[in-house]
Order: sequence, then C-alpha cells, then structure tokens
Amino acid sequence: MASDKIDSEEAIIGAFWAPLASGFPGAFDLKDDCAALSLDAGSDLVITTDAVVAGVHFLPEEDAGAVAWKALAVNVSDLVAKGAVPLAYVMTLALPGAPERKWLAAFADGLRGAQEAFGCRLIGGDTDRTPGPLSVSITAFGSVPSGRMVRRSTARPGDLVYVSGTIGDATLGLALRRDPALAARWQLSPDTRSQLEARHLRPAPPTGLAPAVLACASAAMDVSDGLVKDFARMCRASGVGGQIEAARVPLSAPAAGLVASKAATLADLLTGGEDYEVLATVAPGRAGEFERAANAAAAPVTRIGAIVAAESGVRVIDAAGQELAFATKGWDHFAARGDTLPREK
Amino acid sequence: MASDKIDSEEAIIGAFWAPLASGFPGAFDLKDDCAALSLDAGSDLVITTDAVVAGVHFLPEEDAGAVAWKALAVNVSDLVAKGAVPLAYVMTLALPGAPERKWLAAFADGLRGAQEAFGCRLIGGDTDRTPGPLSVSITAFGSVPSGRMVRRSTARPGDLVYVSGTIGDATLGLALRRDPALAARWQLSPDTRSQLEARHLRPAPPTGLAPAVLACASAAMDVSDGLVKDFARMCRASGVGGQIEAARVPLSAPAAGLVASKAATLADLLTGGEDYEVLATVAPGRAGEFERAANAAAAPVTRIGAIVAAESGVRVIDAAGQELAFATKGWDHFAARGDTLPREK
Repeated sequence: MASDKIDSEEAIIGAFWAPLASGFPGAFDLKDDCAALSLDAGSDLVITTDAVVAGVHFLPEEDAGAVAWKALAVNVSDLVAKGAVPLAYVMTLALPGAPERKWLAAFADGLRGAQEAFGCRLIGGDTDRTPGPLSVSITAFGSVPSGRMVRRSTARPGDLVYVSGTIGDATLGLALRRDPALAARWQLSPDTRSQLEARHLRPAPPTGLAPAVLACASAAMDVSDGLVKDFARMCRASGVGGQIEAARVPLSAPAAGLVASKAATLADLLTGGEDYEVLATVAPGRAGEFERAANAAAAPVTRIGAIVAAESGVRVIDAAGQELAFATKGWDHFAARGDTLPREK
Repeated sequence: MASDKIDSEEAIIGAFWAPLASGFPGAFDLKDDCAALSLDAGSDLVITTDAVVAGVHFLPEEDAGAVAWKALAVNVSDLVAKGAVPLAYVMTLALPGAPERKWLAAFADGLRGAQEAFGCRLIGGDTDRTPGPLSVSITAFGSVPSGRMVRRSTARPGDLVYVSGTIGDATLGLALRRDPALAARWQLSPDTRSQLEARHLRPAPPTGLAPAVLACASAAMDVSDGLVKDFARMCRASGVGGQIEAARVPLSAPAAGLVASKAATLADLLTGGEDYEVLATVAPGRAGEFERAANAAAAPVTRIGAIVAAESGVRVIDAAGQELAFATKGWDHFAARGDTLPREK
C-alpha cells in the first residue's frame, strides 16, 4: 500500500507535476533542469513573477487547491493586464514538511483547474522543504506582438479610465473566511456567501480581455492591492493626474447590498485589494471599440473616471463631486505585518 | 538622516533593484508588473528556476552578498549546462522582517557581482515579508539556437563522460564554514581556506563553456547534488549505464591534499554537492573538439568515464577497477531534514 507521505522530489515531480506539463514540447515532461520556449516570430515574451506565502497571502489552513489556483491566478492577472496571451509558467514550491499525497493531489488539481481556465502549462519548477511556512513562487510567461506590451506608465490626460468585472468582492470574501459568523450577521444566502468567498479563494482574471487591452488601451495594470492605490500608482508612473467617480465603480449585487445596509463601506471595497481585475486607460476615440471588444469577450468593462493633468492630482470623488478621503489606500505586501493577512475587518 | 530600516516595497525596488535592471529595455526600470523579452529569430528561450532558503541552502547568518550571488549562480549553472547563453532573471525575495539598508545594499552588491560575472540582468521581481526564513527564488533565462537545448536524457553508449573544473571543493568549504576549528586541524593556509570557502559561498559556473557544450555534447547537466547522484540521474534519464573512474575525477590541490592526509575521503568529494560544474557526455569523434573549445574558453574539462549499455548499470570504480560503494550518493533537497544544511561533516 502506498504511504500517505511522499519524500523524494523526483517522486513528487513524477506523480503530481509532470502530468501538468504533459504535451508541452519544451517542458520535456519535467525530466530536465530547464525548459525551452519557442516564440512566434514577431512576438515578445511577457514575464511576471509573484509569490504567495501562508499566513501572509492566504490563511495557513486554506484548502490546497485554492492556494494553487490563486498562486497561478495572481501571475496570470499581470499578464492579461499587459495584453498578453498566457503561455506557460514555472513554480518553486517550499513545503514545511513531507506532504501527504492527498494534499499534493489537491494542490495539483487546483493548478490543473487554473491552468486550464487560463490557457497555460507548467513547464518547470523546484520543490524544496523549508523550516518556514508553505510558499509558492510562480513565474508566468505570455506573448504579445513585439514591442506592444501595454505598460502602466503611458496613460495620457484625456484618456478614459476603465475597470473590468466588479470591485470589492474578494475583500468581502476574505472577511467571511476570517469570521464565519459574518455570513449570518450580513444575512447572506449560502450561494451569495460562496460567490464572495470564491472571489478571494479562486480569483479569475479576465483572460478574454487581453486582446481588447492590446488593441485599445493606452496603459493598463491589474488591480491587486486596492483600486485606489493601484490607480494612484498608474497615475504616478505615467506622470499624470486622474479622477475616479466612486459611484461609477462596478459592484456585484451582494457588494452593493452590503454597502446599502452599511455592513461595508464603499471605501472598504475600493481599497480592499485582491480584485485581480484590469485597470485600463483608453483614448476617447477608442472607447467604443474597447467596450465592444470587451463585451464580445464576455469580459465587460466599466468607465469609472478620466486621466487629467498631473497638477490636478489623483482623486476619488463621490456622486456630489466631493473628494473622498481614505484612511488607507490599499495593501502594501511589504510594509504590512508579516504574520497576518492583509485586511482585518 | 535616512533610517536604517526601509519598509516600502517601492522604496526597496527603487533604491536597490532598479539599478540592477538599468539599460535592459524590456525591464522598464522595474516600474511595471511585467518585463518584455525579445529573442533573436531562430532562438529558443531556456528557462530554469531554483530557490535558496536560509537554514536549508545556506547558513542563516551568512553574508547577504554571498546569498545573493549563490541564488543567481545556482540558476546560471543550469543554463550553462544546457549550452545556453544567460540573458536575464527575475527574483522573488521573501524577507523575515523590515531589512536594514546595509543588508539590502550588501545583497544588491552580491547580485551585481554575479550578474556581471555571468552576463545577465535583473528584469523583474517581487519583494515580500514572510513569517519564515529568508528565501530567494530566481527564474533565469538564456538562449540557444532553436531546438538545440542540450538535454540530460540523450547520452548514448560509447559517449565519453566529462566534467568541468574540480569536484568537492564546495563541500569542504561548507565544512569549514560550519566548523572554523577544522582549518587548523587540516593545517590549511588562510588562502587555501578562503579558496575552499569561496567555492561554497560564491560558486562560479563555467559560463564560457556553454558554446562548447552546445557544439559537442550529446547530453549535459550541472553537478549540484553530488557527482555520483547527478551522474546516476543522467544515466537513468538517458536509459543507459555508465562508469566513472574515481581516480580521474579532477580535484583541486587542496582537496587532493586533504584526501591524501585522510582528512576527507574521495567519497565525501564525489557525493558532496554544490559543485556547480558541468557534467557532459560527448561522442568520441567530438572529444578533441570539445577539449580544445573548453581550453580556449578557459573552462577546462576532464574525461572521467564513459557511457555504456543500460544492462551494465551505473558504477564508480577505483584505480584497481573495483566498484566503490557509497553510503549516500548525494543530496536530495527535499528528503533531507528541513532545518539543517545538506552535509554534516
């Protein structure tokens, strides 16, 4: 009978990771130390890397499949916001002890689900033990036509500001995971609760939106650390000012309901982070095309503001045109306490 | 006056990482979430990823510059063994607390030295805090002509087996770091001690050897977990047997002296790991060309054995032709105790 524990890196690779690389020629079934990646002529490779650590980016007892999904999703989110088509990824996994087969199988299932959803394949990795917490570091690769990666620093005054999907659900989902009693206090149906938790556990960046971003956006980035903070970053990188109309920010029905019932504030949602949506600026002449392409890709976008001159600063205004102030603009993975999750509700 | 501590990811990137990306167009001065990499037509990208963790791969109190150097070197080692020219790398750094500027400056200096030695540039990264130990995960990129990445699984019976540089110095260097009293017991001069420690602290994979490997090797991999273990892996992946003549394995003068004085055994050196040299198989007809190209690149290689049919197994023989037995064949990063360094001497 097979042991519950598995304690050789090669056995782990063969049983759990190699199937995720199957069919990708340059992955060599993960039997080599390196992968080889061919690019179509006229393409650039777009590269991003992000790590998630237990106790920092997810609850230590979190489901292995959700951890795996999220580790890939946070990287794919960066690719999509650059207009890139996801291709492949490599992963370094640091495990706090010899894991059980069951845990590894659940982790691999989560990765498989995510890579199928996002259209990319595992092509290499490194599995180690660590005296510290579980951590997953992924480097993901996508492609764009040469020289066409959409940057965050190229927004121009006059551009319109768009965001995909809805904002704030993930931060509500995290609050529900941290304090299960909230679901009753907030009078959520089981379905609604699951829907919000899923936005935290299994974020789904809008991969279908990448071609529209590539074709139409003057600048773009993903929203990972809170809409307000990320918008301010984009404006700073671009040397421009900008304005978001808070009332235009798209909320899901549950999120809107929780704001209406004062269970959450709009500020909570605009600064909560983990949305993994695309924030893009688009010249007015391309706006119609951008909206149509997004709708056609089933990745709808909402116009939430405009880019202005640097002198006007970066502001979020309410329906009456008054500037909103925020106690915190978003999440700094680095400055926050290292031993807790981003948001205490 | 600037604080000793620095606690924003953006400040760290700007002060310490961005200078390492300077001049690489697709790195965008590390101001974007992604990098863009262009490849020459007719090239493949070769990709590898490896992490190093404090207390597992280096002593927790180790010099920051050496940690940084080693984190990059272990990845470059994989590229060189595939015949690839190093181009660039991305890094995720998990820091156990808000680091001091002095530590970050030393770490960045170590990276700069390594990337200049190896000919590659930082193009992206992610800096996080962790409740666990310091860890550095690097994904490195190199290029080879399309379809030409040298694999470990393509050795053929009749091929000669070569290794670059000298074997076993790094494991002696680690022993000296762990137990400073050894230097006196082994009667080492300060220079010799430094030389051995440097092989552990700042491994220097033979980047100059890559073109010779590409031109002449039928199979290759780097020696990172011990020559005997890595040779067995190569034979297994290739479906062949092989023989190493222990007396032919190149040793540095200090290592040979320590074996002669019985301070260390040959088995210690052949299984110690961390050599970061290239193990290559070469068809007899290409052997002269391989040796000449290696010498011309100032990266000499030594013939240490031959590939045979699978039925003959994988063996290491002594000068009398007797098979040597090993208590351990090398280091498994995964199976070993998670809280100690690989080798207790």
